[in-house]
Amino acid sequence: MYKIAYKKIVHPIFTVPITFAFFISLSILLAPLSSQASPSKNLTDHLSATNVILFIGDGMDEHQITMARNYLYGPKGLFAMEQMPIRSSVKVQTLREDNSKQFRHIADSANTASTLATGVLTSKGRIATTALTNHALPTILEDAQRAGYRTGIVTTASLTDATPAAFASHSPHRDCESPEDMEARHPFIPATQQCTHNQKKRGGQGSIVEQLINNNVDVLLGGGKKYFKQSAAKKTFIEQAQNKGYTPLQTLTDIQGTPNHSKLLGLFAKKHLPTEWIGENHHRAEKIKTDTNGNAIYPKPFSCTTNTRFKNIPTLSQMTDKALQTLSHNNTKGFFLMVEGASIDKQAHKRNPCGQIGELRAFDESISKGREFASKFSNTLVIVTADHGQAGQIVPLPESYELVSNAVTAPQYPTGYYAVLKTLSGELMAVSYATNSSPQGLWEMHTGTNVPAFMEGPGLKNIPITINQRYINSLMRQHLKLEPVK
Amino acid sequence: MYKIAYKKIVHPIFTVPITFAFFISLSILLAPLSSQASPSKNLTDHLSATNVILFIGDGMDEHQITMARNYLYGPKGLFAMEQMPIRSSVKVQTLREDNSKQFRHIADSANTASTLATGVLTSKGRIATTALTNHALPTILEDAQRAGYRTGIVTTASLTDATPAAFASHSPHRDCESPEDMEARHPFIPATQQCTHNQKKRGGQGSIVEQLINNNVDVLLGGGKKYFKQSAAKKTFIEQAQNKGYTPLQTLTDIQGTPNHSKLLGLFAKKHLPTEWIGENHHRAEKIKTDTNGNAIYPKPFSCTTNTRFKNIPTLSQMTDKALQTLSHNNTKGFFLMVEGASIDKQAHKRNPCGQIGELRAFDESISKGREFASKFSNTLVIVTADHGQAGQIVPLPESYELVSNAVTAPQYPTGYYAVLKTLSGELMAVSYATNSSPQGLWEMHTGTNVPAFMEGPGLKNIPITINQRYINSLMRQHLKLEPVK
Repeated sequence: MYKIAYKKIVHPIFTVPITFAFFISLSILLAPLSSQASPSKNLTDHLSATNVILFIGDGMDEHQITMARNYLYGPKGLFAMEQMPIRSSVKVQTLREDNSKQFRHIADSANTASTLATGVLTSKGRIATTALTNHALPTILEDAQRAGYRTGIVTTASLTDATPAAFASHSPHRDCESPEDMEARHPFIPATQQCTHNQKKRGGQGSIVEQLINNNVDVLLGGGKKYFKQSAAKKTFIEQAQNKGYTPLQTLTDIQGTPNHSKLLGLFAKKHLPTEWIGENHHRAEKIKTDTNGNAIYPKPFSCTTNTRFKNIPTLSQMTDKALQTLSHNNTKGFFLMVEGASIDKQAHKRNPCGQIGELRAFDESISKGREFASKFSNTLVIVTADHGQAGQIVPLPESYELVSNAVTAPQYPTGYYAVLKTLSGELMAVSYATNSSPQGLWEMHTGTNVPAFMEGPGLKNIPITINQRYINSLMRQHLKLEPVK
Repeated sequence: MYKIAYKKIVHPIFTVPITFAFFISLSILLAPLSSQASPSKNLTDHLSATNVILFIGDGMDEHQITMARNYLYGPKGLFAMEQMPIRSSVKVQTLREDNSKQFRHIADSANTASTLATGVLTSKGRIATTALTNHALPTILEDAQRAGYRTGIVTTASLTDATPAAFASHSPHRDCESPEDMEARHPFIPATQQCTHNQKKRGGQGSIVEQLINNNVDVLLGGGKKYFKQSAAKKTFIEQAQNKGYTPLQTLTDIQGTPNHSKLLGLFAKKHLPTEWIGENHHRAEKIKTDTNGNAIYPKPFSCTTNTRFKNIPTLSQMTDKALQTLSHNNTKGFFLMVEGASIDKQAHKRNPCGQIGELRAFDESISKGREFASKFSNTLVIVTADHGQAGQIVPLPESYELVSNAVTAPQYPTGYYAVLKTLSGELMAVSYATNSSPQGLWEMHTGTNVPAFMEGPGLKNIPITINQRYINSLMRQHLKLEPVK
């Protein structure tokens, strides 16, 4: 879709390689037109609008990237994001709710997205609010909006999920998604983070879904129909959104049939979007069983395959495309867009390597769309990062464990959940998830490793090789000429 | 030590910041002296000698770095290596011995050090030889030596261990360390990698220790006394080394008392050097026990402490210092030096977080020495990298698992070996090792993640953000003006 739209508007001169000479000739060419409000002038303004595209691969640490790359492209391959000009490594910093002078070494998507969005550290579960004191922190999306930029959020999760929520709402906890969450007492949330603190009747900002509708974000594409179908003042949030000028979308066909000048509310799943890929015969990693001698019985190797549940749903790349078209349409000022690959994390939690790999592939394809856009709209800053680490590890094949078992005459095998994948290039790759013993509950846990950042765009000089998530916020604010965070 | 030596030889002008103006004034100043073999001219030659220092943190992936940094400096801190100007991420590539057209996704230190040393991919266990065909591959150390550079190897492991061996010897397998290994049949090594293939009586190159002595490396500092005490032709390898002009060193006192103009053979331990740090009361990560209800009984938090066994032994930083002084002493051509922090890996294998953290600290201190050297000897390329990933992960604290257990009314706990560390800044950090079930054998296994590379020095322009280990070899060859690998 985007490619076609681009072909329509591009000026022939833009096929010339971008060099200093090119810029000079462009200014000479455009100089006589500058006093007329000509289409060429608008075109130039449009192409030089100031844009930020922030891609967040949820749970996408270096290990999860290597796993997906090995499966898809083999050890010689590379993702699009891994070919961007700048790399840094990002420290993930999380405060304790009960003692905000101390750090935790494991984050969640709420506090990390909050830091990326606001430039301020906070505690687990919080959505753009301060640890303990519960003050609302202005987000880059809100500040961009106030400065006249268009704004968008695209995700494969429910739009009310932690990462998208942290850019356009404020809540003591991520679980305060809809009005019905606001009344309940949540037994496993600290007293200071109960949703009741944010009730409208107490002068609070209400649930996440209500804030999203009221925040006037131009493009909202993701899942979460079940939350938007709830209502207040006898109108569902979808109806309320329509009254505010949103076009509701439910399918890929809807997206394709909608013009680019509308405000969009895409709700493509009840909660999170299904994954694009699953394991052959729904295989995931399994707990290793042992025979009567204590020797491991390894699960059989399997391949990944497409998920038949993913039907008439836009891919992350198609949603990104639509968001870029809509946000850039007749827009001379620019935009802020956040795109989340949410289920890299969610499928790692579920020990589903094929789900995780397929979602990383989808995320990287959406980055290619972003980079393609940035190659034409040259004042676009593209930042790709992750929020926190995940559990998946590439570990040895059964043959290696068996060799060691023979050597020491005692069984050796991975302690957690294990899968052997038949990669696309024909090699075998074993992966393990071992941060939690139980098949219940939150399944696998996040890990505390640094995460990568990949960047492209103007003004990116002397980026330190190790940064933190606050630094990413300040880079984006700088590009949009917004006030820095105090 | 190095600081003192440096102060003796440095010219006052070198305290001026290095700018273009400085170079002009330097050439003016030195011009009239250029026809005399004056000390100033020699000094200049000496300071502009072409040097490569390659630091290899064994098993030092991003997760192991984050773990050590959190413990030592808290989430706000940074290692010296993390403040270098250039970062890339390195793909680790390993061929299969039984089918060298296919890749494995888990490497060992032998094949990866071989690739860093030779620029060619090979299979697990191999020391600078080709997979299956067993051809000796020229190493960068050997090529540098042939081109007139001095050479050095510094390690906290036995000098005959895989990483140092791969720079100055050739062997079908890393286990062929000394003459007595050459006769035995090794039951868990493939037939094509048996040491017998390299026996001297069959025209082979013999054991690793023999090759190290014969290879004339100027500086060899590490462990491995037990191998060097073996003999051939009625002389121990230590005696043979002395006949070739080496000064043998056994203690820190020996190092401090030896002039910098000698060839050095430092053997500071029977096998590997002891670690600088251990856990309080020798605590390591432990397998989690459960009570009769299946609830986890978590091990008590502990701190790290210094290892009393580390006594009159040089630190990695002191060995690096001595190597730099010796290699640069009256040397106008330059040198190649490889420095290995070996026990980051070895202690991760043993589920010993304090060992691992202390060794990473020691490794980073040695990098500071290298960077300090490079700041004066400006034609020095410094590359810091790792060979492969390790098992350690930062995971949630017991309180987080307990919260989830309550939420789902079923016990949740990490599947592997678990430790809770009291970090220096007073926070708790939990780490887990879960790649192997058994306390025997090889313990924890390597993992398949990308590893980082940090770089500093002249000519480092447009380094891609994602590279492989062959690329690191080619960068070093380029800096030393050696022939590229075909």
